[in-house]
Amino acid sequence: MSRRHVLSAALAACLLAAAPTSMAAADAPLSAQDIATAVKLREAALQPDEHLAWDLTESLTTEVGQRLAGTPEAERGVAWAVAKFKALGYDKVYTEPVTLPLWLRRHEDASVVSPYPQHLVVTALGHSVGTSGPMQGEVVEFADLAALKAAKPGSLDGKIVYISHRMLRSKTGSGYGEAVGARSDGPSAAARLGAKALLIRSIGTDSDRLPHTGMLDYAADAPKIPAAALSNPDADLLSHMLRRGKPVVVKLDLDCGEQGLAHSFNVIGEIAGSDKANEVVTIGGHLDSWDLGTGAIDDASGLAITMAAGALIHRMHLKPHRTIRVIAYMDEESGGIGAKAYADAHAAQVKLHQIGAESDLGADRIYAFHAGVKPSAWPVIEQIGQVLAPLGIVTEKGGYGPGEDPSMMAARGMAWADLSQDATRYFDWHHTANDTLDKIDPAALGQQVAAYAVFAYLSSQAPDSFGSGELPVGKQY
Amino acid sequence: MSRRHVLSAALAACLLAAAPTSMAAADAPLSAQDIATAVKLREAALQPDEHLAWDLTESLTTEVGQRLAGTPEAERGVAWAVAKFKALGYDKVYTEPVTLPLWLRRHEDASVVSPYPQHLVVTALGHSVGTSGPMQGEVVEFADLAALKAAKPGSLDGKIVYISHRMLRSKTGSGYGEAVGARSDGPSAAARLGAKALLIRSIGTDSDRLPHTGMLDYAADAPKIPAAALSNPDADLLSHMLRRGKPVVVKLDLDCGEQGLAHSFNVIGEIAGSDKANEVVTIGGHLDSWDLGTGAIDDASGLAITMAAGALIHRMHLKPHRTIRVIAYMDEESGGIGAKAYADAHAAQVKLHQIGAESDLGADRIYAFHAGVKPSAWPVIEQIGQVLAPLGIVTEKGGYGPGEDPSMMAARGMAWADLSQDATRYFDWHHTANDTLDKIDPAALGQQVAAYAVFAYLSSQAPDSFGSGELPVGKQY
Repeated sequence: MSRRHVLSAALAACLLAAAPTSMAAADAPLSAQDIATAVKLREAALQPDEHLAWDLTESLTTEVGQRLAGTPEAERGVAWAVAKFKALGYDKVYTEPVTLPLWLRRHEDASVVSPYPQHLVVTALGHSVGTSGPMQGEVVEFADLAALKAAKPGSLDGKIVYISHRMLRSKTGSGYGEAVGARSDGPSAAARLGAKALLIRSIGTDSDRLPHTGMLDYAADAPKIPAAALSNPDADLLSHMLRRGKPVVVKLDLDCGEQGLAHSFNVIGEIAGSDKANEVVTIGGHLDSWDLGTGAIDDASGLAITMAAGALIHRMHLKPHRTIRVIAYMDEESGGIGAKAYADAHAAQVKLHQIGAESDLGADRIYAFHAGVKPSAWPVIEQIGQVLAPLGIVTEKGGYGPGEDPSMMAARGMAWADLSQDATRYFDWHHTANDTLDKIDPAALGQQVAAYAVFAYLSSQAPDSFGSGELPVGKQY
Repeated sequence: MSRRHVLSAALAACLLAAAPTSMAAADAPLSAQDIATAVKLREAALQPDEHLAWDLTESLTTEVGQRLAGTPEAERGVAWAVAKFKALGYDKVYTEPVTLPLWLRRHEDASVVSPYPQHLVVTALGHSVGTSGPMQGEVVEFADLAALKAAKPGSLDGKIVYISHRMLRSKTGSGYGEAVGARSDGPSAAARLGAKALLIRSIGTDSDRLPHTGMLDYAADAPKIPAAALSNPDADLLSHMLRRGKPVVVKLDLDCGEQGLAHSFNVIGEIAGSDKANEVVTIGGHLDSWDLGTGAIDDASGLAITMAAGALIHRMHLKPHRTIRVIAYMDEESGGIGAKAYADAHAAQVKLHQIGAESDLGADRIYAFHAGVKPSAWPVIEQIGQVLAPLGIVTEKGGYGPGEDPSMMAARGMAWADLSQDATRYFDWHHTANDTLDKIDPAALGQQVAAYAVFAYLSSQAPDSFGSGELPVGKQY
């Protein structure tokens, strides 16, 4: 996942009331046979010898590794996805073009020059400009983005701004939404006040000497200044130095930057529907990753979970009413570029999208089920939720939103669902070199394959629309 | 700590019988007044506002940082220790010269060239030769050092050997002793069979993409080949690739090596004794560190704990019989070079060393107390153990050994003690960039200051010798 769509604490607080767990027959639009089939799918995904999602994650991270959008590695990812969809027996496998801004990280280095010379571990923020050789400046610390914005104009001329706000850990990942402004808006906020560069404490909950990258968002009205994240221990170190009251001078050397446009692809695999084959239920994850790790939890696992869910429906010889479309989105990390391309290409087909969902908050278990559907469709969501409940998943009404990628179609009026993953550990590794296969619990993947298979199958069986084409347009989640 | 002196599982198994907890008056050589004073020291160290050890650790890691022996940073460490001992009111502060082999790490990089091109995170083993530019070779995996040693001579000509053994976690750190042979003896074992380089899985219990360095030990009868450690996730990755059965070619580029001799110092602070001032109880830690982290748990904390223990005795206006000597050893990491210099310089004074101990197994709590003393001195050890018991420390007879640094004097017949720290977490961070201040629990430091203050004070008050000069000479622990 990139920077958007993580719940604020306030939103999360709205969601305390769980959905009712029993339902009158009149409110049960899905047939008993469909429910029974979904239960079979769920149980099949939970079998101890069912490890397709883990195998796919292992394969993508081992045979391809990092997949920074626009690089040859990402193109190897595209080829991998095409080949895997085909090998898994998907009925239709194809690509759709995505044009994206290529950004490359070549070299990055930082150190304290005085008063206590020490190396600092940093990583450039995604799409940062470089420093054009080493630059040096006195550091001015701010507790958070708001404190920076309150500084006097011109007061930071030639300074290196450092935002030391620490992200808080939570199951929902709400701390991310609270912290990420420093990364997205910090560079332009600092530049407007005259700063020559920005350092932030990594947006992450770990204490590892591995910094977290992620997109920045240069504003049109501010100079583009270089920006990088310090690992949490390095941020501690810098704060400890600054606390002593002497001027702290830092040297920063970032060789990185945008390199024009690149051409790549979303990769799509479909399990063909029967009588409503032209309507689609979309699930998926993103195929690209940041360049520091192997993109295991962000988002090989999400893609693998949903590919495995589709494959399971195929393997059980089910013929759903609607087509189940698994989308491997390209370049989610730069702001949902592939998802925008998909939404543009399918703008005329919003009504044909029954519902869309994405797995992109790590590899840990799903604990809640949310949906953005028309009110009359809620009983179907409740029914799906009843099949999900034995997986430890609670159906909750209101709040939340779709993942980054489906949000592009949701903004055009598509119904959406969110199978919310436990993000407690996710931000320890998110966007770092530590995003590797060893962080993944195979049993947790099984639970999620079960949930996505149930969700996708039953959504395809729903007698009526979930409201796509009737829902509000232009909504930002 | 470096590579020696960590208990094997077999040794640990010998130590199940804890010492008796009550004692006849005839077996209580320490006076009731001494015991009461020691209890006061213990309680003072545990006060919530007593944070000297943490302050010292913070100061050394913030103001100096890494202290690779022979570098200017290590010399800043020497100046820091001299200044701190003086500021803490130590009665005598002085240095003793140490000549050591300087080794420098300049650049290190590795990648899989084929069949799945990916970056690998490696770090050169301490005192490895470089690769003289990038070198390339096919990887041959061995499960452990024994499997490597069993390979046929010449079978590894031009290969890069990879030892994939994973260290096990334990409270005693026993897994280290079982794993570390791959690092110390692996390079020469591989070279004898024709290999051009060695890669090992990091000797560490973590799953972070931060490799563990540490000394290798080139044998005189083998060519010196470059050697590096892969982080645990990178070792996993390489093993996953090799499992596919295709040849895996790795490129390795290590620019590092020895740079002649350097001159440095052990730094010593003393709390003067009274009637037996020419006899010494030595405690301490090592001042040098590896170059990747800030040397917080290895061993700023150990030095800080023992400096704080001495300072506490001074602050409480105690006048111990014997002198309490706190030694900040230089270059423990290359094999106890400073400790050897100390042992050489004080070879004629073994009998004047009442006992020696060192804190060098991280920053977590002490759970056991061991000693190497003559049998008639054991009742004093038992009495000390009774004052340590409320700290959760069990006195155990037999086995174990002194830390790396005191072992040099112990090999000359000095009595020793070991205040054994809980090493459960230590090898997650040991010898990595993750060895930073945030890993330290201030409350755990307080417990250890209490233990060292009690141990040092009561050892100085013991009416008789602990056996130094009568104990076996030449013993290797």
